[in-house]
Amino acid sequence: MALPPILVVTTGGTIDKQYFDALSEYQIAESVIGRLLKIARVTHPFRVIELMRKDSLELTDADRALIAATIADAPETHVVITHGTDTMTQTARALGHLTGKTIVLAGALAPARFSESDASFNLGMAFACCQSAPPGVWITMNGSVFNGLTARKDRAAGTFVES
Amino acid sequence: MALPPILVVTTGGTIDKQYFDALSEYQIAESVIGRLLKIARVTHPFRVIELMRKDSLELTDADRALIAATIADAPETHVVITHGTDTMTQTARALGHLTGKTIVLAGALAPARFSESDASFNLGMAFACCQSAPPGVWITMNGSVFNGLTARKDRAAGTFVES
Amino acid sequence: MALPPILVVTTGGTIDKQYFDALSEYQIAESVIGRLLKIARVTHPFRVIELMRKDSLELTDADRALIAATIADAPETHVVITHGTDTMTQTARALGHLTGKTIVLAGALAPARFSESDASFNLGMAFACCQSAPPGVWITMNGSVFNGLTARKDRAAGTFVES
Amino acid sequence: MALPPILVVTTGGTIDKQYFDALSEYQIAESVIGRLLKIARVTHPFRVIELMRKDSLELTDADRALIAATIADAPETHVVITHGTDTMTQTARALGHLTGKTIVLAGALAPARFSESDASFNLGMAFACCQSAPPGVWITMNGSVFNGLTARKDRAAGTFVES
Repeated sequence: MALPPILVVTTGGTIDKQYFDALSEYQIAESVIGRLLKIARVTHPFRVIELMRKDSLELTDADRALIAATIADAPETHVVITHGTDTMTQTARALGHLTGKTIVLAGALAPARFSESDASFNLGMAFACCQSAPPGVWITMNGSVFNGLTARKDRAAGTFVES
Repeated sequence: MALPPILVVTTGGTIDKQYFDALSEYQIAESVIGRLLKIARVTHPFRVIELMRKDSLELTDADRALIAATIADAPETHVVITHGTDTMTQTARALGHLTGKTIVLAGALAPARFSESDASFNLGMAFACCQSAPPGVWITMNGSVFNGLTARKDRAAGTFVES
Repeated sequence: MALPPILVVTTGGTIDKQYFDALSEYQIAESVIGRLLKIARVTHPFRVIELMRKDSLELTDADRALIAATIADAPETHVVITHGTDTMTQTARALGHLTGKTIVLAGALAPARFSESDASFNLGMAFACCQSAPPGVWITMNGSVFNGLTARKDRAAGTFVES
Repeated sequence: MALPPILVVTTGGTIDKQYFDALSEYQIAESVIGRLLKIARVTHPFRVIELMRKDSLELTDADRALIAATIADAPETHVVITHGTDTMTQTARALGHLTGKTIVLAGALAPARFSESDASFNLGMAFACCQSAPPGVWITMNGSVFNGLTARKDRAAGTFVES
C-alpha cells in the first residue's frame, strides 16, 4: 500500500528561531524542519514549502489566505503546518472551510536549535496525526491532539488547552 | 472535554541505551522516556510503567505475554509502548488479540541520549497516533504510521516498510 | 600534588541566554555554567559565583570594579570569568592591574542551551588556560588563547583576533 | 602576531563512537573532531590527521610508535591527540622522549555524539593547553591539566587523578 505523501508548510515561529551574535538578537532563520526530519530518519514521502518566516503575532489576514490557498491548491491531502504558537488557533480557524484534507498545525515553545526543545516531538505528533486523524484541522502541542477549531493557548501557563 | 490518559510501557531497546565507560560498553539504562516527555512539555495526562529493560532480540514469549497482560489489565485505552526495533513487529502481532484499545509501538534507531536521535520524533508520533487512530495495533517509525499487524523491518535499510 | 582550586565568576552574556515563550524574547537566565561543568564531568575543585546577569553592552565601570574586587578578594589564584563577547576585551583591560593571578575570560557566540554552541569548548579552554598560562589576563575564544590586554573582537566577522 | 598552527591527531576511542543499528552495536566511526571544531567556531589554524580508529585497549606498541613518528615529523610544535581513556597515560609515556613540542592528549568518557558529553569541553581544554603550557606531554580530562608522565586513570571512579 502506498504511503500518502505529506505536505509540510513552514510559516516561521519560535521553532525556527536562530540567534545572531552580530545583532545580539534572535530572528527567524532558514527553516530547520528539513534537518529535523532527516535526524528523525523520515523515509515517508514529503515535500516542504517554506512559505513565510514570521512571528505568528505578525501574520495578517492576507498571510492566512495565502496559507489556505497553498493547501487548497496542493495535491496532497495530508498537511503539516509549522507555525508560531501565539496565533496558531486563529490560523486553524481560517482553514476550517477546507474539506477533504487532514491538516495539522504544530510549533514549539523552545526553538528547535535548543538542545532541549519540544520541536521534534511536536513535529512527530503532527506527522502521525495527519496520517491517523479524519479530515479536519488539528493542533498537536503539549502531548495532546486538539481540535483546531476549539483549542486555545493559555498564554500564562504556556500550554494549549481544550476549550 | 477531558483528555484521555495515556499509558506508556517501556520495554528497553536502543532508545534507552546508555554508555558505561567503566565497562566500555553500552547497556540499556534507566528509561529516558520521562525526561523526553518533560522536554516535550507534555501536559497531557500519562503514566509510565518501566516493565523491562531488554534488547528486543532477547524478548521471550513470556515477556510478550506480560506486556499483553499489563495492557489488558490497565484502565487506559490509549497505550504507547517503547520497544527495540528488531522484533517490534513480532510484539505487535502478539498484541493483536486485544480489543478496544489503541496501542502504538515506537522505538529509535539511535539512542535518545544522542544529540541526533529519532527518539523524540517517534515518541511524539506514538502519542498522537494513540489519540487519533482507531483501536488496533500501530507502529510509528520513519515518519509513517504503519499497521502493526502487517508492517515489517527492512533490517538492511534500517527502516520500516509496509508489507 | 593538590590541584589548584578555580574560581568561576559569571557575569551574563549570550552564553547564559534562555528563551521565554511567555515574553517571546530571550533573556539572560540562571547560569548554565554549573550544568556545563557537570556534563563535562569536572572533578577539579572549583566554586561558582553568579555575580551578575547582564548583556556585556550594559556593563558599567562600577560593574567592572566589582568584578575586579571580587577576584582580588578571593583566595583562588586561578580564575575563569564568563562574559558577553561585545565588551569582553574592555573588562580584560580593567583587570590588568591584578597581579599574581591567572584570569581567563570566555563566553559564547551561541547560547549554551543551543544544541550547537561554542560554550562548552570555550569554557574548557578557560579551565585549561587558567591552569597552564602564567599570571595575567587571557581570553579563550575561537580556539585561540589571546592576550586579554591586546586582543579585540572583529564584530563583523564574529570572531576574536590578535591586534 | 601569527597564531601557532595546531596539529590534531585522532586515534579513536569513546569520543568517536557511533551507534550502528544494523549491527546493534557501537563502533568507532568517522571522527567527529572536525564537526566539534566547527561548532566551537574555531578560526585558529589547525589541521586534522585521522591516524587510526581504535579502542585504546587495542593500541599496540607499533601504533604508539606511529603516533610518535607522526608528531615528530610534523612541522607543528603544538599538538592535540584524541585518544581512548583506558590507555591514554600509556601513550603519553610513549611520547615523553619528544622534545620541543607541547603535546596534549584528551578523550571523552561519553561519546561526542551524545547530547551530554565531555568531548567538547575536553577538546577545548586541549586546544588551550597546547598553546599555554610549556613543551611536554599533558592530559586534559575532568577539568584538570595533568602531567601526562605521572597522571593515571582511576578506572573505578571513571576519572583521572594526579599520582
